[in-house]
Amino acid sequence: MTSGAFEFKLTRRVEFCDTDMAGIMHFSNFFRFMEAAEQAFFRSLGFSIHDNRRRPVIGWPRVHASCDFRHPLRFEDLVEIHLQVAEKRERSLVYSFTFRRLNNPASPEVARGKLVVACVSRPEPQGPMTSITIPRSIGDKIGVAPGDEV
Amino acid sequence: MTSGAFEFKLTRRVEFCDTDMAGIMHFSNFFRFMEAAEQAFFRSLGFSIHDNRRRPVIGWPRVHASCDFRHPLRFEDLVEIHLQVAEKRERSLVYSFTFRRLNNPASPEVARGKLVVACVSRPEPQGPMTSITIPRSIGDKIGVAPGDEV
Amino acid sequence: MTSGAFEFKLTRRVEFCDTDMAGIMHFSNFFRFMEAAEQAFFRSLGFSIHDNRRRPVIGWPRVHASCDFRHPLRFEDLVEIHLQVAEKRERSLVYSFTFRRLNNPASPEVARGKLVVACVSRPEPQGPMTSITIPRSIGDKIGVAPGDEV
Amino acid sequence: MTSGAFEFKLTRRVEFCDTDMAGIMHFSNFFRFMEAAEQAFFRSLGFSIHDNRRRPVIGWPRVHASCDFRHPLRFEDLVEIHLQVAEKRERSLVYSFTFRRLNNPASPEVARGKLVVACVSRPEPQGPMTSITIPRSIGDKIGVAPGDEV
Repeated sequence: MTSGAFEFKLTRRVEFCDTDMAGIMHFSNFFRFMEAAEQAFFRSLGFSIHDNRRRPVIGWPRVHASCDFRHPLRFEDLVEIHLQVAEKRERSLVYSFTFRRLNNPASPEVARGKLVVACVSRPEPQGPMTSITIPRSIGDKIGVAPGDEV
Repeated sequence: MTSGAFEFKLTRRVEFCDTDMAGIMHFSNFFRFMEAAEQAFFRSLGFSIHDNRRRPVIGWPRVHASCDFRHPLRFEDLVEIHLQVAEKRERSLVYSFTFRRLNNPASPEVARGKLVVACVSRPEPQGPMTSITIPRSIGDKIGVAPGDEV
Repeated sequence: MTSGAFEFKLTRRVEFCDTDMAGIMHFSNFFRFMEAAEQAFFRSLGFSIHDNRRRPVIGWPRVHASCDFRHPLRFEDLVEIHLQVAEKRERSLVYSFTFRRLNNPASPEVARGKLVVACVSRPEPQGPMTSITIPRSIGDKIGVAPGDEV
Repeated sequence: MTSGAFEFKLTRRVEFCDTDMAGIMHFSNFFRFMEAAEQAFFRSLGFSIHDNRRRPVIGWPRVHASCDFRHPLRFEDLVEIHLQVAEKRERSLVYSFTFRRLNNPASPEVARGKLVVACVSRPEPQGPMTSITIPRSIGDKIGVAPGDEV
């Protein structure tokens, strides 16, 4: 465990366009919600996950994404996405995510997700990517969540 | 009317993730389908609508988009998107689109759309945009559809 | 002008997945943002835009959607979507939308949009749609924005 | 190994709206592509993955989804999504997916994915879901891919 922020909670409402004809949130949107929480986590630390005005551009392409779905989410459900930093490696971060449906206390946890993101440097926003050590200006602000809570 | 290509037909099947909880294709996807037809139209002329390897980058941001919806599209409907070049201006193109549901001859036309796209030059893919005259290498290949068919 | 609510302001941040390779928000997402504001407007009146637990289901399919784009939106821009009820007809509503970029006071208005939505009744959530007069329980709560502000 | 179809290949082109400001296909769209291949696989067997006209409705909610990303996909890349049935359980199916970039023979495999989908019965399209044994009319047509190819 290190110092530095290791979690963030984002609350979001399921929108009409997030649903599909089965009447539930389309599963691909859980991944978009994870990423939204990650972006908000970075903003909470004072930087952007993708600042295309600096050179080189620091990027965080996903190398792994997964999700286990326990209960569906429906239109207008209020969902809390709880991001935790599960691992901080030299060149990548591992996030875990827990989704809770705030408007239904009886079945709070609806899904668990995971993202592994690599830190890369690019000469320009869409140029070739080179894996790099996470810059200290960023890494120093990020901690790792205590293990038993993940 | 000019010489040059002035139309393109793209056929596409409505996918599960295109639908919403009302059981029909979400209206925002009609705009994505229009753009898909525009991209295929450009490919049919031998170039890409967004080639981020050349400098400056030529881009086509949308300045107007509209659609009138007559009938819904449903999962697995086979839809033909008929693009026609309605106007070719010095610095922009106007496309009209007709959507037909090929798997239901009884109600073929489901929607009509329109896009107005401006031609811009950018020093790099995400740099500032400057409105430009459509380059002749592109404009010469594009014609205008006969008026009574639009 | 009638009594009843005739406007709503929703603030939203542009997310990474809202952008495209041109570095700006994909134009189709403006339509999703309009709909998000409409849903929040309905919630502010105490009902849902799509309650699939009541029978018949009252739905609001889009019959027209349009948008004029003046300035692009970029990742992490904070945008205010200002919905106004431009017209209240017997069987449909006309909304106008103004998009302002709150984090850039110099160029506040980035786009203007319009949605025309019909009120329909369906025996079940995905059954056939029949155009109906807007139920009084809903219509009485909705007013029309003063003309000179739209 | 059983008789019955155990694989399907779908070819798809990356569209502009599939990309993000990093200039590559947004990772959430890999999951949409997997599902598109699954739908086409079902159509190739003569049925639909979601037929909301029959009662009860047979549905296939996702219980797990994952993807490992090796190389990015870019606008207009032609990608082959190779679905294989990795496991056929009593109440669920496990698919594996391989993504190959057909327009770049030098680095063909760009990602590998997995979906676990449960078979459920619903009294109506958006009603409560009950896990069921895969109906024989469907299961008999589905085989399992030879292990060493997955």
